[in-house]
Amino acid sequence: MNFVTVKKADETCVGIMNENLTKVLLLQQAEEAMTGHKTIPASMIDCIAAGEEFIRKVNQLLDWVSAKGNAESLYIPIEQVTLLSPIPRPEKNIFCVGKNYAEHAIEMGSSADIPQHVLVFTKAPTTVTGPNMAVLNHKSVTEQLDYEGELAVVIGKSGRAIKREEALDYVFGYTILNDVTARDLQSRHKQFFIGKSLDTSCPMGPWIVHKSRIQNPNQLKIETKINGEVRQSSNTANFIFPVEEIISVLSAGMTLEPGDIIATGTPAGVGKGFKPPKFLQPGDQMEITVEKIGTLSNYIEK
Amino acid sequence: MNFVTVKKADETCVGIMNENLTKVLLLQQAEEAMTGHKTIPASMIDCIAAGEEFIRKVNQLLDWVSAKGNAESLYIPIEQVTLLSPIPRPEKNIFCVGKNYAEHAIEMGSSADIPQHVLVFTKAPTTVTGPNMAVLNHKSVTEQLDYEGELAVVIGKSGRAIKREEALDYVFGYTILNDVTARDLQSRHKQFFIGKSLDTSCPMGPWIVHKSRIQNPNQLKIETKINGEVRQSSNTANFIFPVEEIISVLSAGMTLEPGDIIATGTPAGVGKGFKPPKFLQPGDQMEITVEKIGTLSNYIEK
Repeated sequence: MNFVTVKKADETCVGIMNENLTKVLLLQQAEEAMTGHKTIPASMIDCIAAGEEFIRKVNQLLDWVSAKGNAESLYIPIEQVTLLSPIPRPEKNIFCVGKNYAEHAIEMGSSADIPQHVLVFTKAPTTVTGPNMAVLNHKSVTEQLDYEGELAVVIGKSGRAIKREEALDYVFGYTILNDVTARDLQSRHKQFFIGKSLDTSCPMGPWIVHKSRIQNPNQLKIETKINGEVRQSSNTANFIFPVEEIISVLSAGMTLEPGDIIATGTPAGVGKGFKPPKFLQPGDQMEITVEKIGTLSNYIEK
Repeated sequence: MNFVTVKKADETCVGIMNENLTKVLLLQQAEEAMTGHKTIPASMIDCIAAGEEFIRKVNQLLDWVSAKGNAESLYIPIEQVTLLSPIPRPEKNIFCVGKNYAEHAIEMGSSADIPQHVLVFTKAPTTVTGPNMAVLNHKSVTEQLDYEGELAVVIGKSGRAIKREEALDYVFGYTILNDVTARDLQSRHKQFFIGKSLDTSCPMGPWIVHKSRIQNPNQLKIETKINGEVRQSSNTANFIFPVEEIISVLSAGMTLEPGDIIATGTPAGVGKGFKPPKFLQPGDQMEITVEKIGTLSNYIEK
């Protein structure tokens, strides 16, 4: 189950992709065709907050559609809608784990930079943008725009003091996130927030893959290409802190809520890690591929 | 004009305090009495986002109420409602400026810690609590809970790349904020976020004072008492970065929005600055007073 948020005409809808990822079933529209009513919420966060009841309704819908003779008519070719970020406007900042791959910590400094404890900063909700969208080049404020391909976790239900062994029960699903960073601002302002929160610096998507499709989030290939050149190539098996530990540490004294987004950190191969550095330039194409999820593509504003 | 959010029965309402701060006029209720309609929004963020139109309506209401014979009947004694944080649930994390008073930077380390550039971290929206409410003691996760009295700025309208000389045009008003911090978590996790985001660690209020009442936010006495003992006593004139510069730097590449909250940093005198440190204990009473705003009182859960 790959959940998307799409724009069709002026309406924002939650949908689910077909198996070969060419068409989308709009959930409210399909439910209305099936039952005459709309009980599935209109926004992804509200769908997630509805919990197992939401998943149950989606499964009923999919059964009905596939049993129905002319089911295909309810699926809309993906070209006829605009994919947005699956959560277009998070209700709080995105939580981001820093330096969660040892080789990346080293490329940013030295082995002394490998963290002993989970390190978390945030990106403002105004950073979020969708797949295939432009990332502003922010020429007037930075000369060191950089990419960071990451697996992102979407929280499914509220919890505090979540135990490691129960952590994945609190997950709704997984998506891909590009933690675009202004390196000069990141170092100038010490705490990472300012360099991490430029408008449009958080492309996300193309969809949220439900957790039922990903048994182990700590065992997924991840790759980032810039203009077709492979820059980052790793596996989430290289996490210093696996997803369960991140959720447990974050929630120790802070309530996690449905729709919360946790970016799990980026592997080695960011632009700043090269000598000389390979910062992003206007027009650059970025593609992040995570196993079992898909590819998130964006470009830098020309 | 001191704007509050209050709970009356089960309803959350926006109100305005009378001049001697003993009674509250609920805006929607008063508007309905005057016009028969409710056009003033029900939430503080929506009121703020309505801009000058909102202030115009409030002024009309106040004129009508004071002209009316039995005006006083519309004001409710403050004891009959529960004061909430003026913005009970911000739509993004609270922006917090770190080390914005030189003496505080020094008490946290040395003069080498005085920042050259604005330093910003965030607190999750789940930290927010109201005046007179308990702050959880979080005994299971921290042994070093600390207070930080601060002036907070509430943004009134959207803007990016805001110039210093226009910055105060983007302000709606000012309130008081206690940036409660777990010092052990703050240092263990390097980036400040985790140690700053424990549930209920951001008491705010008691009200937002409209900017028309505060000509210069960089010239206000600020004082924090713990169990009646003065711990912090300074003036925002000691800011390293004045409010105008904070707004300008934050908005350089990031859009600020109505209802955004910026905590401007804390003066010297936090618990960690004493030898030995004076961390917060269960039952401790905290009072932060800012000139022209009032006093924010809270206590640590027993």
